[in-house]
Amino acid sequence: MSDNPQEYELDWDVEKRLKLNDAGLVPAIVQADGTNEVLMMAWMDTHALAYTLATRRGTYFSRSRNEYWIKGLTSGNVQEVTGVALDCDGDTVLLTVKQTGGACHTGAHTCFDNDVLL
Amino acid sequence: MSDNPQEYELDWDVEKRLKLNDAGLVPAIVQADGTNEVLMMAWMDTHALAYTLATRRGTYFSRSRNEYWIKGLTSGNVQEVTGVALDCDGDTVLLTVKQTGGACHTGAHTCFDNDVLL
Repeated sequence: MSDNPQEYELDWDVEKRLKLNDAGLVPAIVQADGTNEVLMMAWMDTHALAYTLATRRGTYFSRSRNEYWIKGLTSGNVQEVTGVALDCDGDTVLLTVKQTGGACHTGAHTCFDNDVLL
Repeated sequence: MSDNPQEYELDWDVEKRLKLNDAGLVPAIVQADGTNEVLMMAWMDTHALAYTLATRRGTYFSRSRNEYWIKGLTSGNVQEVTGVALDCDGDTVLLTVKQTGGACHTGAHTCFDNDVLL
């Protein structure tokens, strides 16, 4: 299999249910298998979602770097994807993952650990 | 206290950490207190977040209806907010709630129950 997410296409019956934003992306909520803890949120295009479904590796589209981002490829903090669901109106993806190491790019366990308002 | 979210302002030290999108909104992930189940995702502007923090009622901004949406006001499926956190770069909010009834506008327990891809 290719290691380039761009080369992966979604099944049409999934793609037609997906509602992308103007940039061609959907938000992807990532939760931990077992505890359900919310680890991070990232963005996917159809190729990132197709690649994630095919390889079970959490893969996103980085809006700041404008490129695909296979989580853990450089940090080693990979995500083994064990579940993927669309929401009721197809504009959000929920991933369940077995996370190796910290999920946050800061190294923290989750992206929501450090700025608690309530 | 006013019942109009528009009249609520965020503390400046919170607002300055918040990164809004071009429409002035941030995605809000809503999870269940206790189980951590992800129930839904919605959008907030600064007033919806301020109102949520002040009243502990899950309150969002409806992009389709272009108005504030105090969850459960018409359906009775209210959310008592028990936790609010920002993520590492301030562009996502995570709410923890005690949900009465179904969280989804379809009546389902969560918005992610009915379209499982993996």
